[in-house]
Amino acid sequence: MPHLILTYTGQLDQEIDMKALCHTLAQTMRGVRDDHDQPAFPTGGIRVMAYPAPHYAVADGGEAGMTASGRSDYAFMYLNLRMGKGRSPTTQQRAGEAITQCVHAELASLMAQRYLGITVQVDVGQEVFDNKHSNIHPLFTQGQAKP
Amino acid sequence: MPHLILTYTGQLDQEIDMKALCHTLAQTMRGVRDDHDQPAFPTGGIRVMAYPAPHYAVADGGEAGMTASGRSDYAFMYLNLRMGKGRSPTTQQRAGEAITQCVHAELASLMAQRYLGITVQVDVGQEVFDNKHSNIHPLFTQGQAKP
Amino acid sequence: MPHLILTYTGQLDQEIDMKALCHTLAQTMRGVRDDHDQPAFPTGGIRVMAYPAPHYAVADGGEAGMTASGRSDYAFMYLNLRMGKGRSPTTQQRAGEAITQCVHAELASLMAQRYLGITVQVDVGQEVFDNKHSNIHPLFTQGQAKP
Repeated sequence: MPHLILTYTGQLDQEIDMKALCHTLAQTMRGVRDDHDQPAFPTGGIRVMAYPAPHYAVADGGEAGMTASGRSDYAFMYLNLRMGKGRSPTTQQRAGEAITQCVHAELASLMAQRYLGITVQVDVGQEVFDNKHSNIHPLFTQGQAKP
Repeated sequence: MPHLILTYTGQLDQEIDMKALCHTLAQTMRGVRDDHDQPAFPTGGIRVMAYPAPHYAVADGGEAGMTASGRSDYAFMYLNLRMGKGRSPTTQQRAGEAITQCVHAELASLMAQRYLGITVQVDVGQEVFDNKHSNIHPLFTQGQAKP
Repeated sequence: MPHLILTYTGQLDQEIDMKALCHTLAQTMRGVRDDHDQPAFPTGGIRVMAYPAPHYAVADGGEAGMTASGRSDYAFMYLNLRMGKGRSPTTQQRAGEAITQCVHAELASLMAQRYLGITVQVDVGQEVFDNKHSNIHPLFTQGQAKP
């Protein structure tokens, strides 16, 4: 944790460098600070994964866009951050706002050209069981006071 | 919101027109009414995305089906609707039932021919952060009393 | 239900037999027992689906790994079990532990060779609507005292 999962209408794979967007979002997450100005998320726990949907339908399927502008192709991206329990509400907001600002900036030029909806939501996991096993974390925790 | 996500065993892509199913489900969602007989969901917020799983295992992997009928290939489709907070329990039920009736009708002939499980669930999002940004919504809200 | 969904960085498809892993995990789920030593999950309701992410970014994107060992490719697998309400906390733990032990054993040799994070979480669904329709369940319930 935290996991940022992008689910989106698959035509966007032809219009965005999604791998680059994942890396930019991961960088943004590394920059989020908690209330003590420490990193809100351990670097080794940051994961961004992006899933294009091969099949989809958005809104009315395109009729209103066709009527309004001759463009019937709607796109949509949903960014869902799931983080563990225990962070303050202000840290949660800060994380959501950082991701929002990042994705809005990255997709601003696309949004000027096409129909696009972007939704960012942050969930705090309510899991009843949790197990983490990683040999990535130690790369970032050696010699650090805070694990 | 609302988002309807279909996750399913990938062999179904060879048996169903999944894009058409997405559009039929979106149409169904546009028809759901709230307790005041108004649309339960804003048209511009309706999204249906379908994800075939390339790898999967269902039940016992096929043994019981092979024994019973010589058919060992099980399929499964999970339809998860996530909607925002604030709708009444009866509206939530109405949405779930509408999706259920739609998908059961659409897949009835398939279910008569093969092993298939269909599960529909509705979740009310408990997000701690929510940001929506869209140029699709305005196509449906101009001149409407209710945004 | 229960549904076990694997989401993972897509490069792992080149390194693991993911279909076999799904089947091994389903077998593990069939073996989980409740507090009365009965199967915790109905066989006909067990589903494992695995989704490789075609686009992703993990941790710092590879810099620390490159510095430490010359290997910059991080992998990650997230296993999320969603089960229905009503099972005891000890059964929930038993299910999570069984899945954890299974995936750790299956991926142990891979973890010895590459950077990899594995997270297992169990969620108890808080759905407000639930409908199940299946012709797989009857394969396993005929003649059984417990549906």
